[in-house]
Amino acid sequence: MDIDQYLREIKCEVDRGLERLLPAESEAPPTIHRAMRYSVFAGGKRVRPILVVAAGESLGGARDTLLHLGAGIEMMHTYSLIHDDLPALDNDDLRRGLPTCHKVFGDAIAILAGDALMTRAYQVFAELPNVPDATRVAIIREIAWATGTVEGMIGGQVADLESEGEPVSAPVLEYIHRSKTGALLTACTRCGALAARADAAQLQALTEFGRNLGLAFQVIDDILDVTSSSAELGKTPGKDQQVKKATYPALYGIEASRHKARELIASAVDEIRNLGIRAEPLRELAQFVFSRTA
Amino acid sequence: MDIDQYLREIKCEVDRGLERLLPAESEAPPTIHRAMRYSVFAGGKRVRPILVVAAGESLGGARDTLLHLGAGIEMMHTYSLIHDDLPALDNDDLRRGLPTCHKVFGDAIAILAGDALMTRAYQVFAELPNVPDATRVAIIREIAWATGTVEGMIGGQVADLESEGEPVSAPVLEYIHRSKTGALLTACTRCGALAARADAAQLQALTEFGRNLGLAFQVIDDILDVTSSSAELGKTPGKDQQVKKATYPALYGIEASRHKARELIASAVDEIRNLGIRAEPLRELAQFVFSRTA
Repeated sequence: MDIDQYLREIKCEVDRGLERLLPAESEAPPTIHRAMRYSVFAGGKRVRPILVVAAGESLGGARDTLLHLGAGIEMMHTYSLIHDDLPALDNDDLRRGLPTCHKVFGDAIAILAGDALMTRAYQVFAELPNVPDATRVAIIREIAWATGTVEGMIGGQVADLESEGEPVSAPVLEYIHRSKTGALLTACTRCGALAARADAAQLQALTEFGRNLGLAFQVIDDILDVTSSSAELGKTPGKDQQVKKATYPALYGIEASRHKARELIASAVDEIRNLGIRAEPLRELAQFVFSRTA
Repeated sequence: MDIDQYLREIKCEVDRGLERLLPAESEAPPTIHRAMRYSVFAGGKRVRPILVVAAGESLGGARDTLLHLGAGIEMMHTYSLIHDDLPALDNDDLRRGLPTCHKVFGDAIAILAGDALMTRAYQVFAELPNVPDATRVAIIREIAWATGTVEGMIGGQVADLESEGEPVSAPVLEYIHRSKTGALLTACTRCGALAARADAAQLQALTEFGRNLGLAFQVIDDILDVTSSSAELGKTPGKDQQVKKATYPALYGIEASRHKARELIASAVDEIRNLGIRAEPLRELAQFVFSRTA
């Protein structure tokens, strides 16, 4: 299969879904809807929705349902980026080569746009088409857990903030990555599986795939932060190092980090060995993620 | 009935529910859980959960379910207070006589604590005990709508921010109040009704009750901001006037505002005339809300 074409195709369908599921800019009050759309359409690669679609379709799930689900998860991801970029948190002026939400709309609207995207995401999950209510509820629980404080995104962000400027141990680094980025990536494959009515073994396989890929993804992001130029990265490179963020290269060096990423990708692919031909896009996706480090 | 005793009793049960449904302070990372609990237990009157319980019980709903639901709505309300108080928004140092979340924990943790309370609330709704999944989904849709951008809390907050320092027309003022505070108060009675398996007529009656009471509540809050001392209010009085916020007294004067509140309370009580003796707490609650202006 041609993975580049697959990625372009799904991204395009995801963008159409987001277009449909976000309030129009003309809807009052317009400022907040402009801000939500600005950040959602600021050039994201749609990794998470693509993962949802590929995971769900590996079990024969319906693409419409998976695209709807993926759009909700992308809103959730965008909310977290908007809030992370705020001056009170990471204080980033650029994201994917564009000024961040608060640079364009001010801090107040950026805070509210993040809140609004999370709110809209839950509405989208509650209105997921062609699944029973039990699946909607299971997905909402899954997402709330993955983005929450205990082993989820917010918990990881707090641990990350608190570790800045301090030497970080391997277990703390692993906690930060697993929860800050990994939990939502794992939720993508798990929710895709739930929407496709996975049995226990399938859910387990896709959970482990997501977990390994998620961690690989973060290791590779850390590597790219060290090795890329600003133009490639769309944000200021070396920023992690500047603020002494906990990263894999900082702890293990570049080569060992690449090796770690390679191992994680191999484990991910091994976990879905029983899923057959329909899981081919997932396998290609895993290789694609790794190829970014080359 | 003794409304004071009723309010004390339900508030106490709501607090126990919140205690149980929030992560412990000892759970890692502790800072975020301390911040969430600090704001949730900073002396709220629990108006929203009490409204949920009174509305649900007026139809024979189970108190345990309603308390669980009410706790989730209180988390949602607290998230909105934390974010509204931030320097980028209303910049309030005091709330209910105590330093606001960001004054104690800093802006970053306050932003994340608000995010975390919203997230936890959806988890709580998705795990609502003793109701079918269809009810959980209906409640989540209701809450997401009531707190969203179109006719909900965030929309009202944006319109409010944008109207500061400008003369505000009556329709804009009504939009701000209906959406910023009214929508979630209406969602309290509606969700209480849904959890108690209301029929269409009962849902309609409790919706209108909530809508009228919600608007009355806001008018009265505006009046109190003008007429109260700092000690009574627990925050800096006259702040609305200082920043030229859109308020009823500013537009109509104190006396006409009191008259408006009285009318709204009467309409609220009239809407539930057919609900019988089990709705007595709702009627008392409406009178109690009005008595705050005396």
